[in-house]
Amino acid sequence: MSDAPDVGELRPPDRTLMGPGPSDVHPRVLRAMSTPLVGHLDPSFIEIMNEVQELMRYTFRTDNQWTIPVSGTGSASMEAAIGNLVEPGDTMLVPTNGYFGGRMASMAERAGGEVVTVDAPWGEPLEPAAVEEAISDTQPDVFGFVHAETSTGVLQPDVPELTEIAHDHDAIVVADCVTSLGGIELRVDEWGIDAAYAGPQKCLSCPPGASPLTLNDRAMEKVLSREEAPRSWYLDLSLLEGYWGEDRSYHHTAPITNVYAIREALRLVAEEGIEERWDRHRAVAGALKTGVEAMGLEMNPDDEYWLPSLNAVRVPDGVEDDAVIEHLLEEYDLEIAGGLGDLSGDVWRIGCMGHSARPKNVSFLLVALGNALTAQGADVDVDAGLAAASAALGN
Amino acid sequence: MSDAPDVGELRPPDRTLMGPGPSDVHPRVLRAMSTPLVGHLDPSFIEIMNEVQELMRYTFRTDNQWTIPVSGTGSASMEAAIGNLVEPGDTMLVPTNGYFGGRMASMAERAGGEVVTVDAPWGEPLEPAAVEEAISDTQPDVFGFVHAETSTGVLQPDVPELTEIAHDHDAIVVADCVTSLGGIELRVDEWGIDAAYAGPQKCLSCPPGASPLTLNDRAMEKVLSREEAPRSWYLDLSLLEGYWGEDRSYHHTAPITNVYAIREALRLVAEEGIEERWDRHRAVAGALKTGVEAMGLEMNPDDEYWLPSLNAVRVPDGVEDDAVIEHLLEEYDLEIAGGLGDLSGDVWRIGCMGHSARPKNVSFLLVALGNALTAQGADVDVDAGLAAASAALGN
Repeated sequence: MSDAPDVGELRPPDRTLMGPGPSDVHPRVLRAMSTPLVGHLDPSFIEIMNEVQELMRYTFRTDNQWTIPVSGTGSASMEAAIGNLVEPGDTMLVPTNGYFGGRMASMAERAGGEVVTVDAPWGEPLEPAAVEEAISDTQPDVFGFVHAETSTGVLQPDVPELTEIAHDHDAIVVADCVTSLGGIELRVDEWGIDAAYAGPQKCLSCPPGASPLTLNDRAMEKVLSREEAPRSWYLDLSLLEGYWGEDRSYHHTAPITNVYAIREALRLVAEEGIEERWDRHRAVAGALKTGVEAMGLEMNPDDEYWLPSLNAVRVPDGVEDDAVIEHLLEEYDLEIAGGLGDLSGDVWRIGCMGHSARPKNVSFLLVALGNALTAQGADVDVDAGLAAASAALGN
Repeated sequence: MSDAPDVGELRPPDRTLMGPGPSDVHPRVLRAMSTPLVGHLDPSFIEIMNEVQELMRYTFRTDNQWTIPVSGTGSASMEAAIGNLVEPGDTMLVPTNGYFGGRMASMAERAGGEVVTVDAPWGEPLEPAAVEEAISDTQPDVFGFVHAETSTGVLQPDVPELTEIAHDHDAIVVADCVTSLGGIELRVDEWGIDAAYAGPQKCLSCPPGASPLTLNDRAMEKVLSREEAPRSWYLDLSLLEGYWGEDRSYHHTAPITNVYAIREALRLVAEEGIEERWDRHRAVAGALKTGVEAMGLEMNPDDEYWLPSLNAVRVPDGVEDDAVIEHLLEEYDLEIAGGLGDLSGDVWRIGCMGHSARPKNVSFLLVALGNALTAQGADVDVDAGLAAASAALGN
């Protein structure tokens, strides 16, 4: 047995976070996290819970009563949605066009469900016709899709069309909004989404630990009328209903500090205005995209499906993707990420989310990326990139 | 759809937390939580993860390689232990002597296990003879017990005896150490515990959100040789092995800030020394217990099973437990809690954990509780309580 380890002061490097998340956290959110705690059943905390729910509904564009932060990171809110909605014997239809459809499949299977797929290549969105065909063929109980694919940088268009198809066949619609909530247009009620989940560390720029989830009455009715309890006690929404609903009775100790943090992050959304925030992401990421393309690089997705919060940029021939990532981290304290799954080695993933989606980060990224590429012998025109980005930003 | 909610600055009351958790958080831990984030795959974060694991092993008194913070609150580390160790068809033996044995049972059933019980009344520990009999009769694959019962204030003695009985029958031993880790003597390796979990917001005085878990090779071998994947993807230890093990590959986004926090909380344990910390809890809580008894109140558990970190004090006849709790919160900003389950209405639960386990809180608690009781018409001798506590503290 070891003696007491001699571990020094916490001194992480000062990064700029432009990977697939976490994004840079706003100083006000960091400050909220150093607030002393109250108990998870304190009357003052109940008030804070109410405020978080109200702010979260605003951000999701929903009136769903059932809108809560799940006590874990984004994958916990994902599993809360799927693990409660999918009962043993249910069929769930999931997409094959990115990494997170695969995760949906794994969660649905573990919940006792049967998984069927609607196919589309990595890097492309789902076609409504393909969804129509798959749903007609398989008659799923639950249809899951990814609104903003973090692995491919693809934004799913036609969401209202997809939900209508699903509803025509009585399927419940679950949307993965991990990389869209708070940064990309998302209208849960208007678009007919029955359940949606997100991560806090993307466009909300909140440290991970309490993750947004919303279910409408139809979805919650399915959850509350299950024949068998969900397979997770921790994520059982019928039990969580006791804590986040009217009773406010003990289930598990909420991550109080993370709830403080998401409250502040959502306050920043409300102060900015949700539509203004969508516009900012599109404008700042648009300048980034314009700059990257003017430098001589290519985006992986078609312009039509471009996801402003996550820019998948193709690695030029002859360039080592990892070497560029390391160069940016070591020389610029700047984080971007490589590809995942089918796109591993083919793209870089450059986030433009929340507090990281600021004009000053666009030029910083372009200069740093340009220099890293030049160091790798690639032929890029950094000046052209900077000029194009600057023009796009109206400077 | 509502307009942007107008939610004000975060201004929770300034409580002293002496309930069953969370406890007061050390200022250094709060400060660590306002540290800007690095990515969860950043080389500097890998180093932080290593440090957290090393400090956590020291605190658990184990050399187990498999020692990690689970990304959720204490119930998440509990479900990670049970949901991975219990396979469909397995039998788990759980105790009936408190609230958390019942939670173990629910988690084991959801994992597909069959649950059998070893009986003891609420407020008493398990007897080795009863465990021996239950294990012989039921031949469980997994035996769970609660080292420190937060619902009853009972400390389980004879742990090495219990683990030996279980091992003689080839059962894996899981210990709930939620309210003991970092405050009450616990020796995972020496006592033969195969898997143990804890909450960070008790004797570690860390905000909830990343929760300690340790498994020895024997337990991990059972997890890694499962025929069927665990029912939770989020808490699947064979997948988490990829992130916390040698590969450091992506599974889910770790709650970075909570990892910063637990690192600092565990550093404080290492600086104080784990045995010195156990001694402090016993000394400070001992003064609290002595004072409470000298005031004229009674502890619920026998002295032999007294749990220093959670003091279950009997509510005197004629006193409304809730009125006293409210009085303390409103007049003193002091949190204690009522009873849970079978002891609801019969006891108060007064925590003495981590940063809350300080001499100054003992006199504060005694004065506040004495005045609240007097306001309720109870006959208590506050001066006698204070004098006895002061003498116990050597003042």
